[in-house]
Amino acid sequence: MRIALAQLNYIIGDFDLNTSKIIETIETCRQQGAELVVFAELSVCGYPPRDFLEFDDFIDKSYQAIDAIAAQCNGIAAIVGAPSRNPDIKGKNLFNSAWLLADGKVHSLAHKALLPTYDIFDEYRYFEPCRTFDCITYKGLKIALTICEDIWNLVPDPLYVASPMDVLHAQHPDLMINIAASPFNYDQQVTRLGILRTNTAQYRIPLVYVNQVGAQTELLFDGNSCVLDSDGNTIASCNAFAEGICLFDFDAGTKTIQSELPVPTTETTKTALIHDALVMGIRDYFAKMGFTKAILGLSGGIDSAVTLALAAEALGSENVYAVLLPSEYSSGHSVDDAVALAVNLNCKYDIISIKDGYTSILGSLQPYFKDLPFSVAEENIQARVRAVLLMGLANKFGYILLNTSNKSEAAVGYGTLYGDMCGGISVLGDVYKTEVYELAHHINREQEIIPVNSIVKPPSAELRPGQKDSDSLPEYDILDKILYNYIELRQSPADLIASGFDEATVKRVLRMVNMNEWKRHQTPPILRVSPKAFGQGRRMPIVGRYLS
Amino acid sequence: MRIALAQLNYIIGDFDLNTSKIIETIETCRQQGAELVVFAELSVCGYPPRDFLEFDDFIDKSYQAIDAIAAQCNGIAAIVGAPSRNPDIKGKNLFNSAWLLADGKVHSLAHKALLPTYDIFDEYRYFEPCRTFDCITYKGLKIALTICEDIWNLVPDPLYVASPMDVLHAQHPDLMINIAASPFNYDQQVTRLGILRTNTAQYRIPLVYVNQVGAQTELLFDGNSCVLDSDGNTIASCNAFAEGICLFDFDAGTKTIQSELPVPTTETTKTALIHDALVMGIRDYFAKMGFTKAILGLSGGIDSAVTLALAAEALGSENVYAVLLPSEYSSGHSVDDAVALAVNLNCKYDIISIKDGYTSILGSLQPYFKDLPFSVAEENIQARVRAVLLMGLANKFGYILLNTSNKSEAAVGYGTLYGDMCGGISVLGDVYKTEVYELAHHINREQEIIPVNSIVKPPSAELRPGQKDSDSLPEYDILDKILYNYIELRQSPADLIASGFDEATVKRVLRMVNMNEWKRHQTPPILRVSPKAFGQGRRMPIVGRYLS
Repeated sequence: MRIALAQLNYIIGDFDLNTSKIIETIETCRQQGAELVVFAELSVCGYPPRDFLEFDDFIDKSYQAIDAIAAQCNGIAAIVGAPSRNPDIKGKNLFNSAWLLADGKVHSLAHKALLPTYDIFDEYRYFEPCRTFDCITYKGLKIALTICEDIWNLVPDPLYVASPMDVLHAQHPDLMINIAASPFNYDQQVTRLGILRTNTAQYRIPLVYVNQVGAQTELLFDGNSCVLDSDGNTIASCNAFAEGICLFDFDAGTKTIQSELPVPTTETTKTALIHDALVMGIRDYFAKMGFTKAILGLSGGIDSAVTLALAAEALGSENVYAVLLPSEYSSGHSVDDAVALAVNLNCKYDIISIKDGYTSILGSLQPYFKDLPFSVAEENIQARVRAVLLMGLANKFGYILLNTSNKSEAAVGYGTLYGDMCGGISVLGDVYKTEVYELAHHINREQEIIPVNSIVKPPSAELRPGQKDSDSLPEYDILDKILYNYIELRQSPADLIASGFDEATVKRVLRMVNMNEWKRHQTPPILRVSPKAFGQGRRMPIVGRYLS
Repeated sequence: MRIALAQLNYIIGDFDLNTSKIIETIETCRQQGAELVVFAELSVCGYPPRDFLEFDDFIDKSYQAIDAIAAQCNGIAAIVGAPSRNPDIKGKNLFNSAWLLADGKVHSLAHKALLPTYDIFDEYRYFEPCRTFDCITYKGLKIALTICEDIWNLVPDPLYVASPMDVLHAQHPDLMINIAASPFNYDQQVTRLGILRTNTAQYRIPLVYVNQVGAQTELLFDGNSCVLDSDGNTIASCNAFAEGICLFDFDAGTKTIQSELPVPTTETTKTALIHDALVMGIRDYFAKMGFTKAILGLSGGIDSAVTLALAAEALGSENVYAVLLPSEYSSGHSVDDAVALAVNLNCKYDIISIKDGYTSILGSLQPYFKDLPFSVAEENIQARVRAVLLMGLANKFGYILLNTSNKSEAAVGYGTLYGDMCGGISVLGDVYKTEVYELAHHINREQEIIPVNSIVKPPSAELRPGQKDSDSLPEYDILDKILYNYIELRQSPADLIASGFDEATVKRVLRMVNMNEWKRHQTPPILRVSPKAFGQGRRMPIVGRYLS
């Protein structure tokens, strides 16, 4: 049987678009001789639909879309993902289901058993876990059909009590098919392939894996759909970060798989992966919000430089507008470096001094500030005047402001709320400062796009004379390691001190992280590239006092 | 046996403070002859601890606190709430547990079975559900000990398959004890008492219910801990919105309850409840963040007027600073109304024109704006200049900015991001405009505090000449009904149109709600008073296109 993997980019709640895409893809695959086309988890409504799932009307529309797709399944079958209503009065009202559509109607359904409810996942919020498991037989092919997490429980410390594949395996299926919505992080491709291979090693039959691709605001889906033979070899796969179809022939008698397509080689360095993921994230955010043009404040520093380069690649340099907003504390070379970058990237740029706005605001506050010393208040006013200017241009001309803060700053609260923390989407908010440098080198891998001076000069917010980040923060190579160990690895202060970090520094950094939850609460969505990003995947109390 | 209900206000993660409070309360109750003191769900660590639960060190600290409390339990027992580690390798690593401490050690444990994972709750994110249930016997008293949601499944459409109280009831307990962290909304007191009475009607034994009190950022806990006899009569209870202890005597032989305390009468009007909840919410946010002083922009309109009155009640009028920020589009009476209110409340106020800042920013943008017509860009600049001035004062003098946006505005995106949408906490973001008027009348119930003119004049943002909210929005009495039916009741467009609303208006309003998710993503935490507030309890896709 010829089977197709359809790796598509869906829009949440846009049933017309998703249905058309799925139907067109079924037609394309039919023309290439496929008898079965497999789409991703919740492909009909897009993943994650979040609380739209609580609207009856949303579920009705999903059922209507299923009917429309099923009507096109004649002489070819399709497996799509969509919610289904739980007929049992007890428990949650929905299942997260894989629908096999054939002969113009619904052939059979399989429901998800293991519902990820951690990090960015909230599935038990909506779905009842499935407790009974049966293989599905289509045209003599016996399929162990599962959904994403269902095959992820084969680890030494399993998150779930149930193991659906163990039950299905006892029924002697020919093939495993898993439909997924498995988001990217820089470790995920290796982790995921390891899990897939653990399954083929355990169950000794081939595995078809179909993931969605594209960005859903902060969640980036890399795709990497693939077919493994029963030995765990990748026989065919779709490209990362792109829509695609991949066909293979399966012989149920011998359980062998054949594909004429070469297996694409995947980017392997962490930095290259982050780069590609962020470019897709910017592009999809704009496309799905219905916008084309970005604006950002270009300081001459490394963060805004990398953001501009990524945005130019994602949206086209003609759609990215860089605004330099120097103050009296900006160094001369900052403006030169920023101009050089805009020229290198062929982006439109303007220079607007913040002096008038800053002076005028300070003048209005003078009767109250009197002769109190210069403080963080004046620093923040500079950053906020920049934001007012940028947002004024954005509102007047239809740009979306890109946020340029990095993860190190977001972690310790080194940034001005309603100032440089503004933006529609945060490009680098999940990229530590030391990783931003790596991205800069990657962008410059063939030629100097980002001026070397932006890379080598000491980081500075330039909000007071001679200011450097290291005046108020540990050096970034130390800071980022402490942050990674605390945020990603959830180490305790004692762990950190035992591994050699200075005790006072550890306590100061952890205190800054915990005390700045209120600031992060108001930041834009952050494109997620790590296993633990700020945002919906890390939910901390604002008024909590642990380690503070 | 004399039993005490201890309704306390905890700080998340502050084990020292929570432990001291619990130990002091045990001592107080001992002196009053109590043999058992009952505290709320997760009282040891505070509720909700959120992702702090993923830190081993946090759990270790909780175990240490349990030991410290147990050491004080001699001649008296205590039931406290805290996480416990799941000894089974399979499943989540923690239980949400009730600990009975007696004779200086842990006497027994009961784990929560029904883990709320909807609206603001995320419990399955952290906890494994308990699957086996046993009554606990202490000094001959057989207790059916459960945790919050465990007794909430007695409804026609149960959320859970399991029913812990059915199992426990079969073991013939003398008494039900339920420890809870059940947040306030204006319907919750009636709903909750109904649930408690459904349990006494079903199981025919008395029920002890202990809730926490106080605000945890946006989540407001009203307390209302109480004891019901087996007929569902309230025999004793703690006051709403305040810490308190309430003792009663239980005769296990006759299963009768006696209390000398009068049962406090509870505020019954929705508006009075919202008022009291918001005052507690403001007070606790400041107390737990370690701040004392609030600042806000006072426009002369109803929203900022009500916010100021609530803040003055919560923090003391000497701790609230009102700043009037008129523009050329502000009406003269706006300033007069604002001044009158500040004087009525005895709050410090100042008047700072935004003219200079606005003119200066516009001047800087003039080379780009040229002679393009006045648009939303200029409107937003006014709102943002106000925010820069307010935040400047806040940063200089240590105030926290209060946000004054209401729920109707937040719903349709009628507000300026980084302008009037700024603030540390949103006071009225869960209060529809029509409910804000009700609050104003409530505040004026004994004398005119809020000038009548602020209440009766047509609402206006005053960002362009002669502007009224009704220029761009439906009248609030219509708008709020559509919003309530869509947000709280999750009705479809067809439902709304069928109930008599104009089709074009319905579609326009729903589109505005869905399209402004990106704006709400960056708003401050919103004090939650309704069953469906914006924030962590309503999780919607930003790039979704359902009904847009």
